[in-house]
Amino acid sequence: MKDYIQHHPWQVIEDRFRPEYHEVSESLFSLGNGRFGIRGNFEEDYSGKSLRGAYFAGVYFPDPTRVGWWKNGYPDYFAKVLNGVNWIGVHILINGVALDLANQTPENFSRVLDMREGILHRSFVIRPAGGGRLHFRFERFCHLGDPDTAAIQIEVRSEGFTGKVELIPYLDFDVHNRDANYGDQFWEGFKSYSGDKGSWVSAITKKTGFTVSSYMLPHVTLNDNPVAGQHPAATATKVADNFAADLHDGDILRLTKYVVNLTNLYIAPEAQQEIGHRKLSEMVTTGYKQLRQNHIKAWENIWDMADIEIEGSIPAQQGIRFNIFHLWQTYTGEDPRMNIGPKGFTGEKYGGSTYWDTEAYCIPFYLGTAESQVARNLLVYRYLHLPKAIENAEKLGFTGGAALYPMVTMTGEECHNEWEITFEEIHRNGAIVYAIYDYIRYTGDAHYILEGGLEVLIGVARFWAQRVNFSEDKQAWVMLGVTGPNEYENNVNNNWYTNYIARWCLQFALKEIDITREHHPDVWADIQARTCFKNEETAQWKDIADNIYLPFDEDRQVYLQQDGFLDKVLMPVSALPAKDRPLNQKWSWDRILRSCFIKQADVLQGMYFFEDQFDLETIRRHFEFYEPMTVHESSLSPCVHAILAARLGMVEKANEMYLRTARLDLDDYNNDTEDGLHITSMAGTWMAVVRGFAGVRVRDGVLHLAPVLPAGWSGFTFKMHYRGRYLSIEAGAATCRITRLEGEPLEIDIYGRRERV
Amino acid sequence: MKDYIQHHPWQVIEDRFRPEYHEVSESLFSLGNGRFGIRGNFEEDYSGKSLRGAYFAGVYFPDPTRVGWWKNGYPDYFAKVLNGVNWIGVHILINGVALDLANQTPENFSRVLDMREGILHRSFVIRPAGGGRLHFRFERFCHLGDPDTAAIQIEVRSEGFTGKVELIPYLDFDVHNRDANYGDQFWEGFKSYSGDKGSWVSAITKKTGFTVSSYMLPHVTLNDNPVAGQHPAATATKVADNFAADLHDGDILRLTKYVVNLTNLYIAPEAQQEIGHRKLSEMVTTGYKQLRQNHIKAWENIWDMADIEIEGSIPAQQGIRFNIFHLWQTYTGEDPRMNIGPKGFTGEKYGGSTYWDTEAYCIPFYLGTAESQVARNLLVYRYLHLPKAIENAEKLGFTGGAALYPMVTMTGEECHNEWEITFEEIHRNGAIVYAIYDYIRYTGDAHYILEGGLEVLIGVARFWAQRVNFSEDKQAWVMLGVTGPNEYENNVNNNWYTNYIARWCLQFALKEIDITREHHPDVWADIQARTCFKNEETAQWKDIADNIYLPFDEDRQVYLQQDGFLDKVLMPVSALPAKDRPLNQKWSWDRILRSCFIKQADVLQGMYFFEDQFDLETIRRHFEFYEPMTVHESSLSPCVHAILAARLGMVEKANEMYLRTARLDLDDYNNDTEDGLHITSMAGTWMAVVRGFAGVRVRDGVLHLAPVLPAGWSGFTFKMHYRGRYLSIEAGAATCRITRLEGEPLEIDIYGRRERV
Repeated sequence: MKDYIQHHPWQVIEDRFRPEYHEVSESLFSLGNGRFGIRGNFEEDYSGKSLRGAYFAGVYFPDPTRVGWWKNGYPDYFAKVLNGVNWIGVHILINGVALDLANQTPENFSRVLDMREGILHRSFVIRPAGGGRLHFRFERFCHLGDPDTAAIQIEVRSEGFTGKVELIPYLDFDVHNRDANYGDQFWEGFKSYSGDKGSWVSAITKKTGFTVSSYMLPHVTLNDNPVAGQHPAATATKVADNFAADLHDGDILRLTKYVVNLTNLYIAPEAQQEIGHRKLSEMVTTGYKQLRQNHIKAWENIWDMADIEIEGSIPAQQGIRFNIFHLWQTYTGEDPRMNIGPKGFTGEKYGGSTYWDTEAYCIPFYLGTAESQVARNLLVYRYLHLPKAIENAEKLGFTGGAALYPMVTMTGEECHNEWEITFEEIHRNGAIVYAIYDYIRYTGDAHYILEGGLEVLIGVARFWAQRVNFSEDKQAWVMLGVTGPNEYENNVNNNWYTNYIARWCLQFALKEIDITREHHPDVWADIQARTCFKNEETAQWKDIADNIYLPFDEDRQVYLQQDGFLDKVLMPVSALPAKDRPLNQKWSWDRILRSCFIKQADVLQGMYFFEDQFDLETIRRHFEFYEPMTVHESSLSPCVHAILAARLGMVEKANEMYLRTARLDLDDYNNDTEDGLHITSMAGTWMAVVRGFAGVRVRDGVLHLAPVLPAGWSGFTFKMHYRGRYLSIEAGAATCRITRLEGEPLEIDIYGRRERV
Repeated sequence: MKDYIQHHPWQVIEDRFRPEYHEVSESLFSLGNGRFGIRGNFEEDYSGKSLRGAYFAGVYFPDPTRVGWWKNGYPDYFAKVLNGVNWIGVHILINGVALDLANQTPENFSRVLDMREGILHRSFVIRPAGGGRLHFRFERFCHLGDPDTAAIQIEVRSEGFTGKVELIPYLDFDVHNRDANYGDQFWEGFKSYSGDKGSWVSAITKKTGFTVSSYMLPHVTLNDNPVAGQHPAATATKVADNFAADLHDGDILRLTKYVVNLTNLYIAPEAQQEIGHRKLSEMVTTGYKQLRQNHIKAWENIWDMADIEIEGSIPAQQGIRFNIFHLWQTYTGEDPRMNIGPKGFTGEKYGGSTYWDTEAYCIPFYLGTAESQVARNLLVYRYLHLPKAIENAEKLGFTGGAALYPMVTMTGEECHNEWEITFEEIHRNGAIVYAIYDYIRYTGDAHYILEGGLEVLIGVARFWAQRVNFSEDKQAWVMLGVTGPNEYENNVNNNWYTNYIARWCLQFALKEIDITREHHPDVWADIQARTCFKNEETAQWKDIADNIYLPFDEDRQVYLQQDGFLDKVLMPVSALPAKDRPLNQKWSWDRILRSCFIKQADVLQGMYFFEDQFDLETIRRHFEFYEPMTVHESSLSPCVHAILAARLGMVEKANEMYLRTARLDLDDYNNDTEDGLHITSMAGTWMAVVRGFAGVRVRDGVLHLAPVLPAGWSGFTFKMHYRGRYLSIEAGAATCRITRLEGEPLEIDIYGRRERV
């Protein structure tokens, strides 16, 4: 855990340069606009430890799998988000010497991410060898209103300095992924052009053939008078413009770098040059100030919709805004080909784009904070991948249209290569279905079942029906060899969560088939034909759902995480010496596996999903049994516990869990923020407030609310979408005001009382 | 499975060139002499698919570990047997064109490994472009009597050919391991020298600093008249001598290449040049014919001691000799720093040297076929590694002198990097102890307990005592998260074999401590001090041994391979479609894991080890339960089944299993002989005859025999060492003759009757 980021309701502030945390800061200060993003790298040269990273939505490379020992069934490739052209770069030379904060200690350094405006600021002062001081001021943004564009402004002011300063803005495509399995360069076909109306570089990804091009037009002024630039010879991968000026005391040298980044996902390769140049010239016409204003306006719209205001706790306020800010930078919900990578545009770890995190954590966030089309696009993404999910299952020996959604993917094809996860962490299939259920519950859009949902339900149900087997010994259906959400157990039998969600998937599919068959016979006939559905399939599904084994301890009256759980030595995390934590960095894997310690909610994940199927005392019993053994070493764990704790009236426990999720990256709880931010788990933070402290639920088609305030909070306010309404909720110490901003009146259950809004 | 090797009692014959199987043949035709070995590569250039491999005993490189996803506790390196200098190479040019059987189809090709003499022969005829024919004849051997040396002879005879033939013998150190994790070159510090008294190359391994040098002195004659050679400029990694001759019809060009290979394990680097040159000159003085005779004589001695003669079945005869031959090529038992790699000198797969195969399979072979010192050296090898075994355990969180022997190693340090094996296939620790027990049982040398054995017993017992935990639920000690010998199950609880051998290790340690304490109090005091042994340790060991859980099915009266085994769908292998086999190439890993199918003996491995602790009916019940579910996809499986089947009177089943192990590589049963031969499992073949068909056992200090003959066999003969005696056993259809060749008279139990020999 670190504690160097200043607390502020709207800003992320690093108040002096900490080279030792620079890669953490690079993650925290990342910017993006849904189309592309950039880590908080310095514009100028930096020879210290740094991960330069610029990423482009949907642009990936299938890197050949690297394993120690091949297991049959492993995918051949791991599709990776690609590190692409460095479009922020500006070499800065002072009397011929490159500015490099690894060599020159800056004074008055500050780095500030203004989340309200979506602008990254940086300023510092250096004392060049020749005497005097140079004041530097940087700002940049990835334009949210025009997501092909970005802009950077750099100001250098002389205080008693006399000498030459050169600014060399450049575009550089000679980049490698740090996480390349075999050190390969993933780009080829480099082209570049350098000219007065804009310079550009472009490249094509090997194998996948994505074309990415980046355009820049730099303007430099000295005391507001234009400085003419030169174009040194471009190489195939790099273009640079050279601006030089002699500075004297009081002079201000200012560079504005207009940037356009295009990918063939939105602009065909052959049109990119024309559009790139046109966009540049439009940017110049509009001017930096106005572009900046337009960008801020776009963020205003987001915040108006998605902000959660917390009164009384600045750390809590900063945390939630940090999470909301990064989620919206990563995914704006416009394109069903896109999804939310676990690191967004902030790092390379976990390479691929889409995990079950999207369904379990992100969809509720977008359901609450955006029009229903955004969440729907995320469902459609999976529907479009259904044929690939069927192929994935076939590769593992399943037949007849059984679908296994991948652990991680770009195209629907499985990328992961740990057998205990790739082949066994199959509960992910349940989350895909649960998201459909959750979507319908919150939006009321039951029609989605007819437009793709039911086909997914059938594919997944078929998978479960083949994945279980009948145990003669137990006289029940069992599921052998799985890894549950708690990845600190591998290859277990009868993971309760997996068996439970499998049963629920079968029941949900059976119910929706019945409804569709009865109410939409034509659609059903069509789906039946498309899925080659045989009516006898349902009988087997019903048998499995009725007779699936769920491990249970009669003495304690708790469901057991898996078979054999009670053979472990049961002890609370609090009994572990501090030096043993985090377990995943201190204990060998076998020791973790045979211990009772739980990485993330597993049985409790199920009780969170299916809360209505358990009474409060049952949930409490399970919370009290499992939570003390939980180390929360997954970023996805605390939010679920926060929600359940709030539900159980354990408000301070909920707050502890909330702060852990909300400030996970800001305070680097898991000592891994340098790899990138935990983007998908950020949605869990929002859930911890809305489904936790506010108690938002939908039960039997009725919206429920039961806000509680943790100690120190005097109130909190948020807006949410619900079945065509748009509501504002203001929770105070003794009051809860619900305002209907849009849509028809509705009845809401508030603290158990029905009220009309 | 392949069937291209001709059947012959003493020879391995490939009767025409099969380029498609060339890498398989390269494995089969490997030669070695305990110090170094070479795959059956061609001397001349070959541009087809081939793995050139020359390996040197004990010379390894720690290659940085390659995994997909790092697990805490993985070792940093995988120590690999190094592919070293190509010392057999001879470029052959015919009118300036390189001879290369990938481009020129040979006629009358034959490749013959004479196992009796230890000589590899090859001959063929080609028709050069200019007309006529050239007859080629090659032979080579790795001198068993002087294991620093080797020799090659090549004869070229013209039949109507007129033209120039060049022979360019060379030494080439520019070699890479095919299995290098990151493609690195493992050698550096190359030196070379070319001269009339011999040329040489030498290199040093990176990191480990082993110095290997190779020396050659080629003699060439044309019709027995010397041909003078030239020394073209040597490079740092390669030296070559050039001999050219104009051939006419009937001319015979003959090259003799004398070779010396030295490593610093036996000759200090600074002495290597002098000794290399001296040995070369001695070889020349002795002459090829005499060297060849000396080598054959050394093999005669081996065969006299180690041969098993089978009458009535040539495939069975060829199989056993092939196994004995390769075992003795790999390991001659002189050096306790050496061990037996799973591929010997025949390939690179499995990289490191020592697996539990040595203790479970090889030690019985050397116990039977060699003086007891050989097996003792293998025990001492592990004793010398005890400190490393304690370190290995410490890395996994064990304390107080608990020892975990590595899954695979060169130096005692663990190399393996699959968590389910590295951390969990801990039964290997039991085999280390069992080998000590077996050694004492067969040699009577109980003194070994005092000279290292007991320290190993204590280290291993401590490991088991920490690895179990007490299950409140079962009210017994359990062992969670292990992989048994059957690697088609991973991370299971209470693997019967592991729990059983752990219990036995504890009991054996307790017993030997008691004996030592009583009879050798001084030695015990010393061991106690050295191991920091506390007397209270034994009470806990006893409690565990008395109360360890062994899964058992009351209905079937069988011990269960592990907890939950009966939840599987139980079905015989015979019910699987042929297209699904071998499972490890056809099924995804999860499917294998959750199936009932067994890779190799697991419960039955335990019943084989501890046969005396079960009555015959119990063994039969378990054999009949488990064998039908066993796919024998480990080379170590069939031999154990052959022994048990013979014991149960199922002689034809035993023979089926015997042929599978004896001809595993000759017939390429598992489609992987191209990676190298299954050297360690070859010892299992010998066991299948001696402990299987001959029924050799030691029970309560008495040697037992009960020979049976499978169909087709009319008899078999072998010799064996037993407690200072050297016996010859001739088993016939109705007779069994035991001759005492050396040592005191003894009483033998033969078919249940005691006889004095």
